[in-house]
Amino acid sequence: MKWTLGISAALSFGLLAHAQNDTTLPVNYGIVVFPGFQALDVFGPLDAMNLLSYQFPLNLAIIAESLDPVSTKANMNPQNSNFSQSIVPTHTFENPPENLEVLIVPGGIGTRAPTLNSTIDYVAQAFPSLRYFITVCTGASIAARAGVLDGRNATTNKKSWEYVTNFGPNVNWITHARWVVDGNVYTTSGVSAGIDGMMAFMADIYGANATNTVAQGMEYERELDPSHDPFADLYGL
Amino acid sequence: MKWTLGISAALSFGLLAHAQNDTTLPVNYGIVVFPGFQALDVFGPLDAMNLLSYQFPLNLAIIAESLDPVSTKANMNPQNSNFSQSIVPTHTFENPPENLEVLIVPGGIGTRAPTLNSTIDYVAQAFPSLRYFITVCTGASIAARAGVLDGRNATTNKKSWEYVTNFGPNVNWITHARWVVDGNVYTTSGVSAGIDGMMAFMADIYGANATNTVAQGMEYERELDPSHDPFADLYGL
Repeated sequence: MKWTLGISAALSFGLLAHAQNDTTLPVNYGIVVFPGFQALDVFGPLDAMNLLSYQFPLNLAIIAESLDPVSTKANMNPQNSNFSQSIVPTHTFENPPENLEVLIVPGGIGTRAPTLNSTIDYVAQAFPSLRYFITVCTGASIAARAGVLDGRNATTNKKSWEYVTNFGPNVNWITHARWVVDGNVYTTSGVSAGIDGMMAFMADIYGANATNTVAQGMEYERELDPSHDPFADLYGL
Repeated sequence: MKWTLGISAALSFGLLAHAQNDTTLPVNYGIVVFPGFQALDVFGPLDAMNLLSYQFPLNLAIIAESLDPVSTKANMNPQNSNFSQSIVPTHTFENPPENLEVLIVPGGIGTRAPTLNSTIDYVAQAFPSLRYFITVCTGASIAARAGVLDGRNATTNKKSWEYVTNFGPNVNWITHARWVVDGNVYTTSGVSAGIDGMMAFMADIYGANATNTVAQGMEYERELDPSHDPFADLYGL
């Protein structure tokens, strides 16, 4: 654990140092996916980014263990439901995209699987050269296990609060937050909060006008107050 | 056109007659996808349904022209962005699922493509035996072209209002609506409105408690007023 903490401090410094030297707009995005990812964690933020890609040149890599389609399905459904969707990766953890600038890490029931090591390792490996890093929902548990949130303010899913925060004893977890910004690291609360967090990032980086165009195109009424969080109260935090 | 109208009236009657004779909860869902579908039109409603599938037995078929992955990408991006996602179908229009009870039709830039005929034909063909029918965003243009909205109240994306409503001269289009319910047909406004419309459907069919559990799990503050629609004003409707 101590070794991890030492590395993560170096990684955090690397990320900030890199970002502060580059004033161009980020172009190259990546998102990791794993079995049992939460659909809206991925497609809420990406829908907004899809629309932004009509205003700015943007590339997306979808990064996974292999190039096989990755399902939202968890191993077992208590109702024996067969209700899931699969997304097609473009890159693997072994052959990730070059020059990645922004990495998005979603959450989902799959963050509780014992098979998540390659995802965690990839996040730890990618982080130092990133300009921006964004987690949605329980994706923060992946980031915490990768050691990249240590010493930072961060938030996560409110229903899964205890499960996630146990992975980050050296993270300053913020209970009442729709999203949290710490330097170039954005973390959001659960599922739909990813849309607000992504749009907050978008407004910071690409400007309020570009972001309003996106939100209006999505007919989405943005939450503008990052501390608005009825779900922290609902779940007794 | 007159032939289409005649058929659609028969189809509408068929749907309602079928639904009124069946008091069981619907189990078998389908969603159509086509190149250039809007990601959130699909994955907003489906994320909510994914969570509901932990409370009720539910099956999902993803229905497309072929079993090849279907991309959110439209033919051209003005910024030369390469920013898209692909979903994997489970069924084709030629070999659709049997016993489909609920069909969801998303929108997106792809609704403007000249290659949409097979999607429109499938919707027209599937409609008579459905119990419930749901469109999101410009998906209403597909339903209008399939003739299944004729004589009904319906809504659609507010920015694309003129484009969509021109396909449905015999539809009673409602301008100020987050979503509209007419019998067993639910139509929603643009993109993110699909989440509110899907949850309204869910509350009607599976109950308020089940729906609140889903919304809380998504940390989503539902819009409960179907007539709340600042985007109708924004786009001058």
